[in-house]
Amino acid sequence: MSSQNTPLDYTAAGVDYSKIDPLKILAQQAASATRGNLAGHGVSEIAASRGESAYVMDIGGTLIASITECLGTKALVADAVRPLTGRTHYDSIAQDTIAMAVNDLVTVGATPLSVHAYWSAGGSDWFADEQRMRDLVAGWQKACDVCKVSWGGGETPALAGVVEAGRIDLAASSVGIIPSRDRLTLGDKLADGDAIVLLASSGIHANGVSLARKLAERLPDGYATKLSDGRLYGEAVLDPTVLYVPVTEALFAAGIVPHYSANITGHGWRKVMRHPGSFTYRFSMVPPVPPVLSFIQQHAGIDDREAYGSLNMGAGFALYVAADQAEETARIARAAGVDAWVAGRVEAGPKQVVIEPLSLTFAADELHLRA
Amino acid sequence: MSSQNTPLDYTAAGVDYSKIDPLKILAQQAASATRGNLAGHGVSEIAASRGESAYVMDIGGTLIASITECLGTKALVADAVRPLTGRTHYDSIAQDTIAMAVNDLVTVGATPLSVHAYWSAGGSDWFADEQRMRDLVAGWQKACDVCKVSWGGGETPALAGVVEAGRIDLAASSVGIIPSRDRLTLGDKLADGDAIVLLASSGIHANGVSLARKLAERLPDGYATKLSDGRLYGEAVLDPTVLYVPVTEALFAAGIVPHYSANITGHGWRKVMRHPGSFTYRFSMVPPVPPVLSFIQQHAGIDDREAYGSLNMGAGFALYVAADQAEETARIARAAGVDAWVAGRVEAGPKQVVIEPLSLTFAADELHLRA
Repeated sequence: MSSQNTPLDYTAAGVDYSKIDPLKILAQQAASATRGNLAGHGVSEIAASRGESAYVMDIGGTLIASITECLGTKALVADAVRPLTGRTHYDSIAQDTIAMAVNDLVTVGATPLSVHAYWSAGGSDWFADEQRMRDLVAGWQKACDVCKVSWGGGETPALAGVVEAGRIDLAASSVGIIPSRDRLTLGDKLADGDAIVLLASSGIHANGVSLARKLAERLPDGYATKLSDGRLYGEAVLDPTVLYVPVTEALFAAGIVPHYSANITGHGWRKVMRHPGSFTYRFSMVPPVPPVLSFIQQHAGIDDREAYGSLNMGAGFALYVAADQAEETARIARAAGVDAWVAGRVEAGPKQVVIEPLSLTFAADELHLRA
Repeated sequence: MSSQNTPLDYTAAGVDYSKIDPLKILAQQAASATRGNLAGHGVSEIAASRGESAYVMDIGGTLIASITECLGTKALVADAVRPLTGRTHYDSIAQDTIAMAVNDLVTVGATPLSVHAYWSAGGSDWFADEQRMRDLVAGWQKACDVCKVSWGGGETPALAGVVEAGRIDLAASSVGIIPSRDRLTLGDKLADGDAIVLLASSGIHANGVSLARKLAERLPDGYATKLSDGRLYGEAVLDPTVLYVPVTEALFAAGIVPHYSANITGHGWRKVMRHPGSFTYRFSMVPPVPPVLSFIQQHAGIDDREAYGSLNMGAGFALYVAADQAEETARIARAAGVDAWVAGRVEAGPKQVVIEPLSLTFAADELHLRA
């Protein structure tokens, strides 16, 4: 058991990016070396999509984006909270899983078309819990309907010995289309003077969950702890990730093409500088912090640097748009049901994220994503 | 520990399809209900691809196939055999994983274009084993090169508490193109009188591995047991799955479009009747059985019905072609490096698989895959 006095951090909570990132870079280099295989098929890749959140190929003039993304460990929270609420919460978990894929897919300018399910259980028994199974299926279908995608198929293996008994490893892959080349948002359009519009998160989403779980272990009442708004901590952690597809689709319908987009997931606000170029991202305001994230920050005893460097802190998605389209972008997002703020701007300057209201700066060397 | 006298079977080995199949059908029904979401995008699904091995969409006249597939538990064998051979075997495991996706993708007539990696480890530590990591990356790259696909990206989460410590849940998703509508092989062309060409497997591939692992537990020398050909049992189990893409590509290049295809995976030769129609599949010969599969059958004490009903028994892929193209199909496969036999024929009649040399019949009700 952790001491109550030790601040919790992400590494202590089990995710050590310093071990994972070198593999990612090795794999990225090997992956990049296979691009030549497409030539024989009359297909080419959009090279700038390598290292971005989704992969884009030009197939006879049709631009197809694809991605595979993992939920992470959030299902463990659902398992732990179910006895407290009497609900399985796998409808929410399904939405989280789909969000991980489609919210990344839209960053390149794609309209998601299809989703495949990857539900890898620790044994056949997992599938015998009918209520949980029905919730998972219903939540998956509903999230597909919200995103206007077709659920094309999936894989439901039972992997005793690989996946822990009673647990499930959930992931989603998605295929989308970029209907015209000027919809591609791979970074070439980002410029000094662009505005940064932040879209609201619903809570922790599916990143930082290891930290949230670790915190539950050392709270006397665990997931049953009441937040300031009276909700259970566990229930609030399980608020499903916002699906940003209705927002990006509404923007495209209004003729607004972001210059760049970033899904704020692992690495928190450091992800704001995921663009390969050298820019300063300066924020003059920060969105309200969802109660569950304030609670985590306070009780885990982490400072703003740690909190904003690993959690979304209320901002689940960043749209970088022409300054004169910023207010309309925020308005369209709100009309699509997602709160939004014109929160910052892109400036020529050293690569960094500056959050002025918090006197916080993340330097370029605090984010390593690319080969 | 199992008694030496009890025959091992698939259910005893931990995979109980009777528990999984109802979920698959529930999910298939919900998935099918989302198809209408495509209409607003000017996209339609190829309805007959639902229930087939890959999902096909018509995107402005471009036919795109997609799939996500799991390796299963074969990595556990690599982990157990490594101390015996001093090799990680993850280069082979990588090939197996890609094979699971692309060998299914080609059944609908697709040319695979891209692959995404899904490597979900039991903790960050998994990625710190440099040799294993390098083998996995190198094997993945090589399999992509063999299949002429671009490795478009991937996901490498560390999921302590979901995936077992020290283990990895491996999967692949793939996107492909069907260059012309007459290349679609979704079953409408299958006819009385067609020939069945079987393509050789290399061994167990990645299905039936639970059984192979269970057997290792009760062999006195486990994976170190010598087979008739002098190889170690564990090494032979790890022979990587054949990549059938070079065969299907060579067939397409020669103008041969199969009337149907089946990847022989779970359910063994029962998969031969995966086509939704009512046909009798009659075999007049069976391919030679790889030594590792003979060994498993013998030492697990299972009869031919159990063996052919759950393992590939030497036939990893079935091509259903016009009778007058059967010999050329087999010749092209051999030229592409995969042994092949004109082994049977499709007949009007009740849905069943008849393996004459073994006096074996699998009836329609022995395979449940569809809603």
